[in-house]
Amino acid sequence: MPLDEFNVIQQYFVAGNKSTADDGVMLGIGDDTAILKAPSGEELLFTTDTLINGVHFPEYTPPRAIGFKSLAVNLSDIAAMSGKARWFTLALSLPESDPQWLKEFSEGMFELAHKFDVRLVGGDTTRGSLSITISVIGTTEEHRSVRRDTAKEGDSIFITGEPGLASIGLSIPDNEAALSDNDKKRCLDKLNYPLPRLQEGEFVRDFASSMIDVSDGLCADLSHITNASNCGAILFTAALSNILPASFGIATDSALDAILYGGDDYELLLTVPAEKSVELKKSWPASFATLLCIGKISAGKGIFMQDETGNQQELSIAGYNHFHG
Amino acid sequence: MPLDEFNVIQQYFVAGNKSTADDGVMLGIGDDTAILKAPSGEELLFTTDTLINGVHFPEYTPPRAIGFKSLAVNLSDIAAMSGKARWFTLALSLPESDPQWLKEFSEGMFELAHKFDVRLVGGDTTRGSLSITISVIGTTEEHRSVRRDTAKEGDSIFITGEPGLASIGLSIPDNEAALSDNDKKRCLDKLNYPLPRLQEGEFVRDFASSMIDVSDGLCADLSHITNASNCGAILFTAALSNILPASFGIATDSALDAILYGGDDYELLLTVPAEKSVELKKSWPASFATLLCIGKISAGKGIFMQDETGNQQELSIAGYNHFHG
Repeated sequence: MPLDEFNVIQQYFVAGNKSTADDGVMLGIGDDTAILKAPSGEELLFTTDTLINGVHFPEYTPPRAIGFKSLAVNLSDIAAMSGKARWFTLALSLPESDPQWLKEFSEGMFELAHKFDVRLVGGDTTRGSLSITISVIGTTEEHRSVRRDTAKEGDSIFITGEPGLASIGLSIPDNEAALSDNDKKRCLDKLNYPLPRLQEGEFVRDFASSMIDVSDGLCADLSHITNASNCGAILFTAALSNILPASFGIATDSALDAILYGGDDYELLLTVPAEKSVELKKSWPASFATLLCIGKISAGKGIFMQDETGNQQELSIAGYNHFHG
Repeated sequence: MPLDEFNVIQQYFVAGNKSTADDGVMLGIGDDTAILKAPSGEELLFTTDTLINGVHFPEYTPPRAIGFKSLAVNLSDIAAMSGKARWFTLALSLPESDPQWLKEFSEGMFELAHKFDVRLVGGDTTRGSLSITISVIGTTEEHRSVRRDTAKEGDSIFITGEPGLASIGLSIPDNEAALSDNDKKRCLDKLNYPLPRLQEGEFVRDFASSMIDVSDGLCADLSHITNASNCGAILFTAALSNILPASFGIATDSALDAILYGGDDYELLLTVPAEKSVELKKSWPASFATLLCIGKISAGKGIFMQDETGNQQELSIAGYNHFHG
């Protein structure tokens, strides 16, 4: 017997949900809307992202990863504003009501939700091709969000974690032999279970002049900062080559391509005034994702790569774009 | 040349958007998230709904109606909590980037957004089968939302507007001859351009003991109130027969079917303590949708129809359910 819409919601999404006394949820799933109480005086962050089967993840992606990643890409946007993620809604379109799929999908989603203490408070399930739209509300103290249009000439450019791994993971079915089993797993985990950098995003609030999360590719997202801030950028080849160790079974050029143009990283790309850069690196908690300085903001237009001898080469901006995809 | 994702957003959704000094939008479309400022001390209402081509609207629906209705069904949820709608995000999945379609869709959406002073603050466009997910944040004063689980025995049941018209409109292609041109237009307008009852929803806050919006059908949505409130309901046949005038070219039984089971009404269904019912009807502004008392809440289980002689017949609850659809 197929589950009906209300049973689906009840069974997987109400039962798997957690709540605590201080989560601000006055009324959760089950009425026309949720009723929420934001911390007094704080500003709200509001974002939405859709993941479509075969476009945003390969059709062979495990349901648990789909659930995890659908929430992760949205939480990453909150992280990129230096916010705290609080509540989300799930709009799930499914070709059929498959209990095993729903079980694994919801487990993946709630694993991440519980890790960062964010609550599912509403949703909608419809029959259609597989597509997941999540909307998140986050909060920040007044005037403390970090935007993308406020980078300044001379700022250092930092990146968290290991951009490039996800796009290498995506190409693994075509490149079985190139990587060790351990590195394959790292890349696939990064592709399927990207950890939004929420702690890192809140931490850099006192340092960063601008920030964005890397979803379209480092170069494309850096261009969103430079275009919005009316400046350019210089990336250091030597610094980028430190991101993927030489032991990684990928040619240097391919690795650089993955780092610069591979999407789906969900790392934070931020700019920091030069005088705060040393303090940021010194105070960076060991438990956080790695933080690497990879370049600086320039006065001119365009994004350049600079090698050890000072030679510069302009990069073309070619991130992933769904309407060209 | 196909528009790319960023141009699409820029051209239709940024340009068509309005803003005012007091709309609480600190930062709108264009960063990782919007930054919003809710009125001090108010609670948030948060809801999301998806409309899928061929499921939630016929494939021949004009793009302007799709844009209008996608927002309307979401604003209706805010109305049903007695809230003020404030901000929304749009996740739009499209098979192709068709400028004319986008123009008409966005015009329909913004027509309604401007009417109720609600702002588009973010979104996502992806390539896929046509599907629209909108998420809305509304606000209410503390503890003033009207829920669905608080109806009490003896309360009067009220409905706004004209439930049934939308489902008659949906059947028009198969029933060309039955209606006058004028009534056809009324039904199609109600189907394609349902006006969310936001003013009415805020107004009844001082009267209503419970409320829901009618999307699945009057009977199905009434059962959501009675189930959540642990009570039953009696509907008066005579009152329901007043909703569609005899001049309407529809057999009485078909009209009653449309009123009870037709979905897509987006009217408000509310319960009001008997002692407040007279005052509510007396104070009801003439500019609002009509308000009709159609029954009362009973102690027992189930929903019954009662004719003029007092005979009761139990109704089966059969609203629209997407996973059975």
